Amino acid sequence: MIVYGKNVIKEAIFAKREFYQLYIDEKLTDYQFLSFLKDKNMRYQIKSKGELNQITQNALHQGVVADLKPYAYHELDDVLKVDCIQRFIILDGIEDPHNFGAILRTAEATKLDAIIISKKGQVPLNATVAKVSSGAIEHVPVVLVPNINQAIIKLKKHNIWVIGTDGATDKTYTDLPKHESVAVILGNEGEGMRPLVKQHCDYLVKIPMYGKINSLNVSVAAALMMYQMI
Amino acid sequence: MIVYGKNVIKEAIFAKREFYQLYIDEKLTDYQFLSFLKDKNMRYQIKSKGELNQITQNALHQGVVADLKPYAYHELDDVLKVDCIQRFIILDGIEDPHNFGAILRTAEATKLDAIIISKKGQVPLNATVAKVSSGAIEHVPVVLVPNINQAIIKLKKHNIWVIGTDGATDKTYTDLPKHESVAVILGNEGEGMRPLVKQHCDYLVKIPMYGKINSLNVSVAAALMMYQMI
Repeated sequence: MIVYGKNVIKEAIFAKREFYQLYIDEKLTDYQFLSFLKDKNMRYQIKSKGELNQITQNALHQGVVADLKPYAYHELDDVLKVDCIQRFIILDGIEDPHNFGAILRTAEATKLDAIIISKKGQVPLNATVAKVSSGAIEHVPVVLVPNINQAIIKLKKHNIWVIGTDGATDKTYTDLPKHESVAVILGNEGEGMRPLVKQHCDYLVKIPMYGKINSLNVSVAAALMMYQMI
Repeated sequence: MIVYGKNVIKEAIFAKREFYQLYIDEKLTDYQFLSFLKDKNMRYQIKSKGELNQITQNALHQGVVADLKPYAYHELDDVLKVDCIQRFIILDGIEDPHNFGAILRTAEATKLDAIIISKKGQVPLNATVAKVSSGAIEHVPVVLVPNINQAIIKLKKHNIWVIGTDGATDKTYTDLPKHESVAVILGNEGEGMRPLVKQHCDYLVKIPMYGKINSLNVSVAAALMMYQMI
């Protein structure tokens, strides 16, 4: 798959991801980045900005573009452990790649165990998500499940608290369980969590809001949750 | 100025902002929104999607576009009060309109007193910022100062703590002063705070990070700060 951006490529190299091609803008003058590529023995082709624009469909590629092995999804069983406290975020249909990318970035900073998604209404791991994640996409396991509700049932069986988010509840995000395994669910940007998913939660929490508009960006809400889960 | 998006237009109407023109997509079927416009006695022109794309230069306009009185900046003296605890965010050159918009949205939800910016390297209050702010742009005073350092000196004279953010410091964001007036500074996406601005701070705090990448999106960092300031 085609990806772009200095941090994305850098983290892919650190993660020893397989590169099919690496393209560098003929006018790139970031010598630190070029010497990093040299240190890592990375082979690359020189391309014009126009060619890179064409390859990336005019994305903000920073003069660094690669065709590399696609990001793989994990299985839920692969990330579940029995001997330690675990922390998960479940996304119930995040549509905007900027939001998914920003959530991955915070998940990496807070060393979350995994992000759980289903296909339904969810943006996949694509180039924009990778770029916005600033390369965090390499370090956070993303679990793709066929059905969120089935996944919740499995998490509960593993003694993991499953907490939903909703504006109309009494408990707040500071009421998340401490010193226990937790999975927090964040809903779609416009619609929030689906009713059936909400029903499957152990309980719901809200992030208090004091203004007139009463909604936060979902990547901001996710960050406030993740920093409470630490 | 041309703005777009249902929430932006809705909040502009609530805020009684002057409308020069309001354009609605001929195929808009959001009857709740159309009946809201009727309730508010808003006159509008019907346009084709192509025309709206042209007016907004292909932005995600949701079929709702307006030409309205530009957002105005405030003076620092207008937002400073003597008789209550105040909370400010100072932006030292935020370039990405998505970040500025997301910061405005959280600032509205946390009832921040104002956001302080200078022209230098800072994205202005534009249509993208308005859209991403989800209309919060109508409710959060934005102060434009000629010089951030001069503004910091003035804030300190008003007994407001001025706290910078930096990864290389011991104090964390939970060490913000409580029950006192505070202004927290967030730096540019790539460069962070400028050294001179950093020097003017009372002290610096960091947001702890536990991963390999060690950087958060600035709108996420701002949100963690704002929720600590409440």
